[in-house]
Amino acid sequence: MRGTILYGPRDVRFEDREDPRIEKPTDAIIRISATCVCGSDLWPYRGIQKVTEPTPMGHEYCGVVEEVGSAVKTVKPGQFVIGSFCISDNTCPNCQAGYQSGCQNLEFMSRAQAPTLRVPFADGTLVATPELPSDDIIPSLLTISDVLGTGWFAADAANVKPGSTAVVVGDGAVGLLGGLSAKLMGAERIIAMSRNEKRQHLAKDFGATDIVTERGDDGVARVKDLTRGIGADSVLECVGTEESMMQAIQSTRPGGSIGYVGVPHGLKLDMWPVFFHLVRLHGGPAPVRRYLPDLIKLVWDRKIEPGKVFDLVLPLEQVAEGYRAMDERRAIKTLLRP
Amino acid sequence: MRGTILYGPRDVRFEDREDPRIEKPTDAIIRISATCVCGSDLWPYRGIQKVTEPTPMGHEYCGVVEEVGSAVKTVKPGQFVIGSFCISDNTCPNCQAGYQSGCQNLEFMSRAQAPTLRVPFADGTLVATPELPSDDIIPSLLTISDVLGTGWFAADAANVKPGSTAVVVGDGAVGLLGGLSAKLMGAERIIAMSRNEKRQHLAKDFGATDIVTERGDDGVARVKDLTRGIGADSVLECVGTEESMMQAIQSTRPGGSIGYVGVPHGLKLDMWPVFFHLVRLHGGPAPVRRYLPDLIKLVWDRKIEPGKVFDLVLPLEQVAEGYRAMDERRAIKTLLRP
Repeated sequence: MRGTILYGPRDVRFEDREDPRIEKPTDAIIRISATCVCGSDLWPYRGIQKVTEPTPMGHEYCGVVEEVGSAVKTVKPGQFVIGSFCISDNTCPNCQAGYQSGCQNLEFMSRAQAPTLRVPFADGTLVATPELPSDDIIPSLLTISDVLGTGWFAADAANVKPGSTAVVVGDGAVGLLGGLSAKLMGAERIIAMSRNEKRQHLAKDFGATDIVTERGDDGVARVKDLTRGIGADSVLECVGTEESMMQAIQSTRPGGSIGYVGVPHGLKLDMWPVFFHLVRLHGGPAPVRRYLPDLIKLVWDRKIEPGKVFDLVLPLEQVAEGYRAMDERRAIKTLLRP
Repeated sequence: MRGTILYGPRDVRFEDREDPRIEKPTDAIIRISATCVCGSDLWPYRGIQKVTEPTPMGHEYCGVVEEVGSAVKTVKPGQFVIGSFCISDNTCPNCQAGYQSGCQNLEFMSRAQAPTLRVPFADGTLVATPELPSDDIIPSLLTISDVLGTGWFAADAANVKPGSTAVVVGDGAVGLLGGLSAKLMGAERIIAMSRNEKRQHLAKDFGATDIVTERGDDGVARVKDLTRGIGADSVLECVGTEESMMQAIQSTRPGGSIGYVGVPHGLKLDMWPVFFHLVRLHGGPAPVRRYLPDLIKLVWDRKIEPGKVFDLVLPLEQVAEGYRAMDERRAIKTLLRP
């Protein structure tokens, strides 16, 4: 088959790769219905995260099971499944505590921007939908694999509660779906920080009540204006830079919480302001597996339509253009159809 | 009167200072029964935190009210009071949320290593004991002002719950009383990291079940041995250096919590391991005012004896020797009696 391989900065190719096959009894092979390009794929694409050898790409996926290993019990050929970008056994103490992204057998999925995919620890990683889905909800189901699951974790880690005020730093797909998650968790006021009209529009569609276009001290001042002068109860940090983290810290009230899910590349956080701001920090790779059943139900029952974050749909073989469009911020998120 | 003034590195003097007097209607003047030297006083004493002018010292205090301003309602002359090292109005939104150390009118107490002291926002900062205390519990009451309150906050911020496992990084007075706090909150296993025999003994006296003398990777390995290989539910970070913070992060299970109360001087935290360890971080200057009533009751009812951390008692005028003994780690904590 042909699959996606990153050779170096801005050099993505769709070319021959070995067909995946069952390697262990706990594996499953799935035929991908839809995959996509993640904001985190742009780090190596832009050369910020070094790539030392040709690297198969893609970690967001859903599709139909083709084959399972002899030990797999919870999914079977013919079922439609969604998996977390974190591969987990779902049985170790960390998984049992709900932190499948800290599994003792953790692997990060790659190779998903391809027509077929091997999923290790299939029982611990995949969840099946009730039936085969209709085509129109596949994009929304796909988001659960990472961006919705990660946005949900950001809101959860930020302790969003009914009636609380939430700020979302970052207007990428994760930030937008973090806002949607905050809405679903009952936040009364949701302040989206964005300068991009299209993204502002989508943020509001997902439940944002206020848009703040300012950044830095001006952005903090605007947030304080909207929060009795003290800052928000919950802040979702969905970027991962020093600037965005400081924005989050200064926008949070003392005792308030920051859920941070942007991968912190080279971020050395000055703990002095963190200490005196008395904020709570929690984040990391989202334990999507914990949320999969509930999020599948929300999409399946058509309570939410997170698939709206996909504003570009391309055939999988045009994956390079999918990366380019996101790199140049022409697209929020690119869906790829094999 | 004479009071304590720091002139520069290792230059503490006890000399003439202006008598404190009521300056605002919300002030109180108290006659100090006992005060002490704090681990955080050693930062400027050692020159790590620069002192640009002669600086009155001391922020831990208890004593008898001598005079109150016209607006003070909850304490009156003749009462024995304990105050937080953070001066707070206890009415602003942050105080109401239990974060008096983030008060909109926050000031940090200083000048307490003296015979008398002006306390601003007396109603928001001080709490009176039921009666005048007997002399033997004054040391324990004094600890509430900062070290016990701060240790309690470390345990609270680290989400210590009945049955949980807690690690204490740091064997100073705050760490020792953090261990006591974890015990009172129901921690089943309390692992104290200490190499000092006297401090190990006191840690055990306060409830520690295990002592780990190793540091760095060896220390982490020992903690993991004691925690099913995954790390502790709660870690109290009571030092404030990069080394101690990394010790805490690596000793915490994914989804576990770190309460950090060591003032992070120059600490730039690499967020990459924090992210992938999936820990929760909360800390800062302790909101002692929130805890004062409950902690006073615990001491008053003789349920706890946190005053055991004082292993050196000196007349206030020998304050310089009190600093020296702590700097040289000859004493855990120095009590000063005017």
